[in-house]
Amino acid sequence: MSKPLKDLALRVRRIAIDTDRENVAFMHRDCSAYRAEGFRALSKIEIQNGHGKIMAVLNIVDDARLVGPGELGLSKPAFAQLQATAGAAVHVRHAEPAASMDAVRRKIAGERLAPQDYLDIIRDITAQRFSKTEISAFLVATGQNDLDRDEVVALTRAMIQTGQHLDWREPLVADKHCIGGIPGNRTSIIVVATVAAHGILIPKTSSRAITSPAGTADTMEVLAKVALPMQRIERVVRKTRGCLAWGGTAELAPADDILITVERPLGLDAQGQMVASILSKKVAAGATHLLLDIPVGPSAKVRSMREAQRLRKLFEYVALQLGMNLQVMITDGRQPVGRGIGPLLEARDVMQVLQNDPHAPVELRQKSLRLAGRILEFDPDVRGGAGFEIARDILDSGRALTKLNEIIAAQGKQTEHFSLGRLRIDVKAKRAGWITAIDNLQLARIARLAGAPMAKGAGVDLFHRLGDRVKIGDVLYRVYADSPAEQAFAQTRIQQSQGITIGPRTQLPQAFDVC
Amino acid sequence: MSKPLKDLALRVRRIAIDTDRENVAFMHRDCSAYRAEGFRALSKIEIQNGHGKIMAVLNIVDDARLVGPGELGLSKPAFAQLQATAGAAVHVRHAEPAASMDAVRRKIAGERLAPQDYLDIIRDITAQRFSKTEISAFLVATGQNDLDRDEVVALTRAMIQTGQHLDWREPLVADKHCIGGIPGNRTSIIVVATVAAHGILIPKTSSRAITSPAGTADTMEVLAKVALPMQRIERVVRKTRGCLAWGGTAELAPADDILITVERPLGLDAQGQMVASILSKKVAAGATHLLLDIPVGPSAKVRSMREAQRLRKLFEYVALQLGMNLQVMITDGRQPVGRGIGPLLEARDVMQVLQNDPHAPVELRQKSLRLAGRILEFDPDVRGGAGFEIARDILDSGRALTKLNEIIAAQGKQTEHFSLGRLRIDVKAKRAGWITAIDNLQLARIARLAGAPMAKGAGVDLFHRLGDRVKIGDVLYRVYADSPAEQAFAQTRIQQSQGITIGPRTQLPQAFDVC
Repeated sequence: MSKPLKDLALRVRRIAIDTDRENVAFMHRDCSAYRAEGFRALSKIEIQNGHGKIMAVLNIVDDARLVGPGELGLSKPAFAQLQATAGAAVHVRHAEPAASMDAVRRKIAGERLAPQDYLDIIRDITAQRFSKTEISAFLVATGQNDLDRDEVVALTRAMIQTGQHLDWREPLVADKHCIGGIPGNRTSIIVVATVAAHGILIPKTSSRAITSPAGTADTMEVLAKVALPMQRIERVVRKTRGCLAWGGTAELAPADDILITVERPLGLDAQGQMVASILSKKVAAGATHLLLDIPVGPSAKVRSMREAQRLRKLFEYVALQLGMNLQVMITDGRQPVGRGIGPLLEARDVMQVLQNDPHAPVELRQKSLRLAGRILEFDPDVRGGAGFEIARDILDSGRALTKLNEIIAAQGKQTEHFSLGRLRIDVKAKRAGWITAIDNLQLARIARLAGAPMAKGAGVDLFHRLGDRVKIGDVLYRVYADSPAEQAFAQTRIQQSQGITIGPRTQLPQAFDVC
Repeated sequence: MSKPLKDLALRVRRIAIDTDRENVAFMHRDCSAYRAEGFRALSKIEIQNGHGKIMAVLNIVDDARLVGPGELGLSKPAFAQLQATAGAAVHVRHAEPAASMDAVRRKIAGERLAPQDYLDIIRDITAQRFSKTEISAFLVATGQNDLDRDEVVALTRAMIQTGQHLDWREPLVADKHCIGGIPGNRTSIIVVATVAAHGILIPKTSSRAITSPAGTADTMEVLAKVALPMQRIERVVRKTRGCLAWGGTAELAPADDILITVERPLGLDAQGQMVASILSKKVAAGATHLLLDIPVGPSAKVRSMREAQRLRKLFEYVALQLGMNLQVMITDGRQPVGRGIGPLLEARDVMQVLQNDPHAPVELRQKSLRLAGRILEFDPDVRGGAGFEIARDILDSGRALTKLNEIIAAQGKQTEHFSLGRLRIDVKAKRAGWITAIDNLQLARIARLAGAPMAKGAGVDLFHRLGDRVKIGDVLYRVYADSPAEQAFAQTRIQQSQGITIGPRTQLPQAFDVC
């Protein structure tokens, strides 16, 4: 590596552009450094100051008001990462590609990579030495020739090692996770309240929705503050035995957050990457026991029982290597679990269950109890098979609701009041018959187009479930939106497909069976 | 697809940022459209005006001087592609991923794609509906599980169909191409001059160097203008039977130009993509007969004879399907061909050969004659095996030089005068012995760091070749640079490795053999 030289020094300037997890630098076309070094737009450069060095993608600018010759503009994250001072000198040079790109190219060529390769790659990704296109190459290469299970272990370990690690100093720290894909599947809040009421530590951090109409954090935010600093989360957990916070503030397995910014838009979800992503986050968050929910259904993330079993084995193998106690539940993913899809509607369902409201959605209650019951059985003092009944007692007695209220108080009650979207669409049955299929993806899309999760009160409220008999004109579901634009987006999507199939009784699906 | 609505209209503004082949849009964080639609940084949006619609990657801006709420900034290429008018209204919405990304995901999953899939993908890429990360996913997916040869045909056809096509209206339109990787391999200028002097039409367009120290266009530019509009190139060819122009102005197989912006930085060069890239450009340029040079050597692009033969068969198969007459020559790629590496030094070598200078590099002369001879044999009137002698007569008689001067005059003589870099480094042998290996890549890097090809007079001048005997202190090569910074970059690289191995006579490599 050659040292940067004085005559390639530029004055640094902050450009208020948020390029998310990618560093971008801006240089004027007439900049002497640009000409001398032959930098090209979109090539990668290395920028150094007294604090350290970063890599950035270069954009060439023709407007001296943005950056002048002699200046180097840095996007917000790049400026922050370099701890730059406006106007101070930085040195720029062509960046060598990250050394671990060699390993990525070996993976593309079909090689099996060693644990050290994964550590090098994930270190480089965490330090933002990979461009988005390089990350994409890594994801496709490791997604295509499926990683063997020891490679998944190596990838998971690398993701854990490159971030912070929470230690709760207890022998049993429980967590639950659902691999997703089912709208209105908001069991977490009920499960955490029930488990914490029993006394098991369950510090649950959740994500906000990225492609779905609501994540647990979005729904919980209807009730309480969720964007808490780490110390605050710790205090909540120590006080109440549980929490339901947004995990975005902690630097747990940060590589995962970076990978996801590329993975999601590409629509990739290779099994190995999913396993590494989930388990690395959970191990880093200090969980010792994890209950994993894998919903299966024709419009769920996992479409067949065979695929679910294969995924389960992979999860179990990797968890074993990491010393984590993992239980997998394969569940019915053929339709939404509660009635509501969207933050406020899901919060309503959750509160109905916790309040033992006779109108509470039965499936949400049952599924939450089954999940909570299995977690309770992590407790050495609970007999195998007794978890469900204990969970039911906790719920029926109101202790789960009391616990949730404690957690809400500890996190800080939500001061803003949300109400359901004022614009509504009633979607009606066009024929009589039985509901033979519900398209999770289509309902999720409609809820999202209607404004969820950004608009808390937007979403879809389902009036019927699989197997219900309906007449022409019966309302299948109601869409709530806040703005006419969003209402129109949802309406257009509904015109393509309502997402609910009505057919003869003979086409009703069979009972869900995990065997 | 929902229609964009009036209330998401924004005023468009041109942001003078050159994002190369990727469209970027800039929106203020407080923009109502941003909030209503839940756009995220780096998500893709669709922008529509009266002229049509484009896709762009979204960057979020926090500085109203860049773009204010209510405005949408577009990078230079995006603004141009949309034929936008500053201040006019555009409509924005979330972009659906390009429909053909489904095919890319099927390829990632290991499927064989149909010709229609490749056409859809390449159409979407040409219309810039793929982001860089999506292009990266396509490249890795098609590079990893090697495309079968019919898929390569389909990819090549798709790349031809999505661009312009030149028709020279002659039965024999010759071209030559080298797959690259060998510095100082500047045979094209000599070959074109010789072949055109014989009367065969050879309209050669070349690229500028991207990762190498000089492309044919960079070297030719020392002598003549090379950035010519298409009509001018046509006139040159009609008048002189040849040309040596830069191909960048024609929209021939434009998908290739886009793919290359991602492929090169990633360091990918899968065989199928290379074949499609080269043959699509040549067919689109109207060539009916192509001579392809595949150099083989330990530091060349192709490292073994087996790999070269495999690549040759693939080229031959695809060319056959496209109805193109292809001849492949596998050549010695163990060392640079001429002495000079860098535009001016290579132009000097070329002119020495054409002027029959007794000091002209013998290998450059011999290789050029062999290539030209094979092209001459495309002429039905030339007997098999007679091409080399005819080429030699043309060169020795000075007719090739006369032809080059005609071409230079037709393209326009270079008015700028270039001279060798004023700063020099003499790299000397540290031990006595025989030159047993020359590292093409290292010498290319040193020449590039010294300033080539941007600085025409920069580069490396080789004083010795494989098999030469040297004493301690003999100058192995001289580096020319224009700026102290570039001299220092090259110097640092040389300290890592001179790129030339000196050993005992017993380690001399054997004669090159294509069998």
